Formats: sequence, structure tokens, C-alpha cells
Amino acid sequence: MMSKGLLIVISGPSGCGKGTICEELLNRNKSLSVSVSATTRSPRKGEEYGENYFYMDEKKFQEMVDNDEFLEYAFVHNHYYGTPKQFVFEKLKKGEDIILEIDVQGALNVKKIYPEGVFIFILPPSIDELKNRIVKRGTENLRDIALRLRNAYEELNKAFEYEYLVINDEVPNAVRKIEAIIIAEKCRAVRQRSVIKSILD
Amino acid sequence: MMSKGLLIVISGPSGCGKGTICEELLNRNKSLSVSVSATTRSPRKGEEYGENYFYMDEKKFQEMVDNDEFLEYAFVHNHYYGTPKQFVFEKLKKGEDIILEIDVQGALNVKKIYPEGVFIFILPPSIDELKNRIVKRGTENLRDIALRLRNAYEELNKAFEYEYLVINDEVPNAVRKIEAIIIAEKCRAVRQRSVIKSILD
Repeated sequence: MMSKGLLIVISGPSGCGKGTICEELLNRNKSLSVSVSATTRSPRKGEEYGENYFYMDEKKFQEMVDNDEFLEYAFVHNHYYGTPKQFVFEKLKKGEDIILEIDVQGALNVKKIYPEGVFIFILPPSIDELKNRIVKRGTENLRDIALRLRNAYEELNKAFEYEYLVINDEVPNAVRKIEAIIIAEKCRAVRQRSVIKSILD
Repeated sequence: MMSKGLLIVISGPSGCGKGTICEELLNRNKSLSVSVSATTRSPRKGEEYGENYFYMDEKKFQEMVDNDEFLEYAFVHNHYYGTPKQFVFEKLKKGEDIILEIDVQGALNVKKIYPEGVFIFILPPSIDELKNRIVKRGTENLRDIALRLRNAYEELNKAFEYEYLVINDEVPNAVRKIEAIIIAEKCRAVRQRSVIKSILD
């Protein structure tokens, strides 16, 4: 009997480096795929429907909200973004492992609906380092930076609602730890009822 | 602040290959050490006190039992064997990870006293393979073989009291999975309260 895939939720405050980690994780593990979100923003040049996002208008997005078709959704910078349940659940059912890179609020919403996911919180090595990373982006004014830092601090306090904490001191270290977490999670007894049953039968 | 070490309990039915797996695990990971048991049996040639076992007479062993100094103990083939709490807890406190290779009954006793241990059940790939392995040892008569098989079957039914199941299809595969479990367990949020606290402070 085929095992169900894992939903691996990678989250953490802005500036923790979760995007880079997910990119490297996907590069190194061709069997992993990434969750594709729905959005009301327009495709940018080179982006493709179903590859980068499922693009839709607000009416369609609202319909999906009303029909409870999202694992989570949020309104960010004037646009809606959401994780479609059907896309995720179909892949998991086929035994595929899916990476979902998401902010802290979104991850905790996913946890309410799908607690059997693997919830990993990415930590910066220190608050100073987090500050450096947010400032270095250079795309934000001082007020935005202050806001992001305050948010990050509040989000760090949510770390214990996750099952795993991974410190992003060096990207390759963090990626190796996440790879180990994926292997270990597949060995968990609660995920292997069918295996032991087939040996005993 | 230094983290506490992990007590990694590797267990499973007779013939599952846990001994070989632990040997390979210790060979590959020099930072791991192994729990040394107390026993009332005499040292064999080449064995050393504190290296292979803590050898003692029955009076001393009984004293330790009375003083609640064992994580678990058992009477096997006319001799007592036990895991001394002090030896294990001192190493864990120093941040060392310890491997405890033990039978199913013993492991479940350890779990009652030290549930924060990492409990790994080693499974044979199939009941037939387990039978082959028990028979191939060639050191037992048919009645012993039948008894061991019956015990093994009963012990397999206890697999779900463990947190992890690792199938011993090939020793290197099983060892790599246990290595991943150790890395993942160190990332668990419940084990990292001090880390997040030091980042937030």
C-alpha cells in the first residue's frame, strides 16, 4: 500500500531566509514539489498559469473562499493569495511530498486544518542578523523596516507552535536538517500503520 | 546554554538486526556513545569492567534494584542485566547522545521512566525474513526457534508504542534513517526552548 505524501510547511519571519532554503531544497530533491498558490494579481512577464500561480479575478477567488476551497488565504499588498486544498490534497494522495513556503499566520491556519503536516519554523541565527537581512534588502524605507522587525519579533514568539525549529546559520546546514526531518517523519510510527500491518498479515 | 543529549533507544524483536545496526551506527558516528549495562554474569575473556559491562554480584545488583538505580532490568539465561540510571543521566546531562540497544520489554520500561527518549523500533522486511534470520543463526534447537518466532510476533504488535519504525531491509539504509531521526529530533521545538529564548532575549 502506498503511503500518503508529506505536506512540509516551511515558515518563519520575513528575512529568515525561507525562500532561499526552499529553492535549494527543491534543487537538491527532485522528488519534492512545491505548492502552487492562487492569486488575484496579474502574471508578471515569464510567469505561467499553474506553474507560478493560479491567476484569477476577485470574483473567482471569493467563490473559492465561500466554498471553503483554501487551506489558507491572505490579502497582501492589494492582492489575494491562497493555497488551494484540491491541488495539495491530490498530490499528497498520490504519495507526493509537497513544500509549502508560507508566512507564520498562514502556516498556523494550515495547521488547524491539516495538523498532520510537518511544520518547520526557520530561525535567524540572532535578532541582529535578522535586522541585517531585512535592512540589506534595501528595498524598504525605515518605517517599513521597523514594521517588519516588530512583526518578526512577534512571529518569533510563535515558534513553539511548530514541531521543528531550524536555525538558518548557513543555507546548506538548514537544508540538510530539513532533509533529515523529511526522512525521520516518514519513519514515524503514526504514518506507518499500513507497513506494520502488511508485515504482520 | 548547552542542550541535553538524546537517549536513543534502539529496539525490536530478536533477529531484526538491531545489534548490527547499532554497531554500524557507532562506527559511523564517533560522537555517539553506547549505554553500558550492569550484569551479574562473569566477564568473558577480553571483556573489561565499565567497557563491556559493570560486573557485580547478585547482592550488589539487588541493592541497586532496591535503591531504584536502574532504568530497567531483566533476568536472562540465569543472570541479571540492568541499565544504570546514573551512567545514562550523567552523559545526557553533559550533552552526549547515548545509544541504548535493548529488547522490547526493556525499551517499554525505559519509556515509562524517560518518555523524552527517542524510541526506535527495528522491523524485519517481512515475517519470512525474520524467520530466516532466526533459523540461520543455527545456534538454537527447533523448540527455541519456535519460541523466538512466537515472541517476535508478539513483540511486533508492540511497534506502535514506539515513535519511529525503521525497516531493516539493508543495514546502511536503516543506519542512514536513524542518523536522520537523530538530526530531526535535535530540531524538535520541545527540545529547543533555550535556543529560541536566547534569540529573543
